[in-house]
Amino acid sequence: MNLFQSKRIAILGPGLLGGSLLMAIRQHLPTVHLSVWARSPSAIEKVMALKLADIATTDLSVAVDHADFIILCVPIEGMPLLAREILAANVQEGCVVTDVGSVKTGVVNALEDVFAKSPIHFLGSHPMAGSEKAGIESARSDLFTGATSILTPTLFTDEIAMQCVRSFWAFMGCRVLEMSPEEHDRKVARISHLPHLAAAAVTMAALYDEPSNVQCVGNGFRDSTRVAAGDAGLWSGILLENRKEVIASLQDTQARLGELLAILEKMDEKALRHFLSDAKKLRDSLPVSP
Amino acid sequence: MNLFQSKRIAILGPGLLGGSLLMAIRQHLPTVHLSVWARSPSAIEKVMALKLADIATTDLSVAVDHADFIILCVPIEGMPLLAREILAANVQEGCVVTDVGSVKTGVVNALEDVFAKSPIHFLGSHPMAGSEKAGIESARSDLFTGATSILTPTLFTDEIAMQCVRSFWAFMGCRVLEMSPEEHDRKVARISHLPHLAAAAVTMAALYDEPSNVQCVGNGFRDSTRVAAGDAGLWSGILLENRKEVIASLQDTQARLGELLAILEKMDEKALRHFLSDAKKLRDSLPVSP
Repeated sequence: MNLFQSKRIAILGPGLLGGSLLMAIRQHLPTVHLSVWARSPSAIEKVMALKLADIATTDLSVAVDHADFIILCVPIEGMPLLAREILAANVQEGCVVTDVGSVKTGVVNALEDVFAKSPIHFLGSHPMAGSEKAGIESARSDLFTGATSILTPTLFTDEIAMQCVRSFWAFMGCRVLEMSPEEHDRKVARISHLPHLAAAAVTMAALYDEPSNVQCVGNGFRDSTRVAAGDAGLWSGILLENRKEVIASLQDTQARLGELLAILEKMDEKALRHFLSDAKKLRDSLPVSP
Repeated sequence: MNLFQSKRIAILGPGLLGGSLLMAIRQHLPTVHLSVWARSPSAIEKVMALKLADIATTDLSVAVDHADFIILCVPIEGMPLLAREILAANVQEGCVVTDVGSVKTGVVNALEDVFAKSPIHFLGSHPMAGSEKAGIESARSDLFTGATSILTPTLFTDEIAMQCVRSFWAFMGCRVLEMSPEEHDRKVARISHLPHLAAAAVTMAALYDEPSNVQCVGNGFRDSTRVAAGDAGLWSGILLENRKEVIASLQDTQARLGELLAILEKMDEKALRHFLSDAKKLRDSLPVSP
């Protein structure tokens, strides 16, 4: 049974993720009525030019009018304000709201507070999909295909909202996981935020003093540092929001680099092989790419 | 004019690089007579089964007999011994020898010493191509297409050898650069050896204490850490051989991570944006992928 048959979905914030969602919904849920809200008229024009929605507007109350399901696709700093604006708009009883933010504890707390005792059910989600490229220009209908989407229910989560959000991401082609917002933030600090900072640090150490080194780069450098090309503003917000867990993961990484430095200084081949094969075993344990 | 028309090329060590060279030579230089040497009979059997050479043998003097051009594709630790064995074998006057090692200063010094006052001309090269996968099973005829190959001439380099090696890598589809062995090692520490160690350190920090974190990985982690799946033995040799430059690059990276830690602890959003946009600008300066 398709929970979304002829339902109304509103996408708030048509950037890379919001734009890709519009395309994926059109493809996988063709009977859905799609509305889009953006703060800037130029973003709305792009959505209209690409014919990605039934309604595209800068008027939030028009976008969320009679919506069954609302997805917040704005930077995490902007979510609490946007949630309060939704509450002030004309939203129908039982409407389910989710978001696509990369850090959950703070946002989930804030949005549960905003929507408490309202007719709206909120549940956080985080589809682990994206790109170093930003904007609707880089949107792709298959961005979510095969990706993991993490739902972060709490004691306050409504079971029907849970079913709705779980089913939505499954329709988008995601593998759905569930964990607490705190566990999410701890894990994601390690497997997403840390790699971002490491890529930025390696890029700086490799190229800042000798920019001509770019002439020599091969695919290893290219892949290792790809995420460092991500949007600096967006990532600053994410990293600061999750700074407690990010700091812990950076400290562990510094300790690991310190171990490697000591090994190289001692020319301890056995220890070096041991470190590199431990890392290889862990890297080889990744599930096969979708 | 094709310098290699009907010439004899010997590939010593048919692993990922040697095997890919055999395929690429068959494709781009079809008139070449190809011989292969390996220390182990099982490696020779694989080359024969794949029909990649005219001669495949564990007898070095048979493999290099009348060779015009010899390419050493063994791990760098094994190159000086192999060079002495070549010298003891039946090699014709004017034969050009090159290698594909990832570190140059030590190997070039050692091999220039071995081949000094011999009929052999040596010149080091380093095609910046490879994969985290090892062995002839992963060889591909297009491994070198679009890659950069760095030649490392010295005061002792013969001009005809230089022309031969330059022309060879151009036939393989490479963009050819020339620099001293020392400059090569300094640059490659930054853009290849450092990313390898950073990927290993990030993998350990992300997964060692909580291996279940693999469930959440997305493409960012996958790409950032891909090189950490490389062969531990091969990489230990490379990193120890270039340890002076690698240590310097690790120290710079630790300092950069320290900068990031201080920024996050102070919650200095401006400084974080600045760091990330410097890194983004440098990452964006990479030449477009071939």
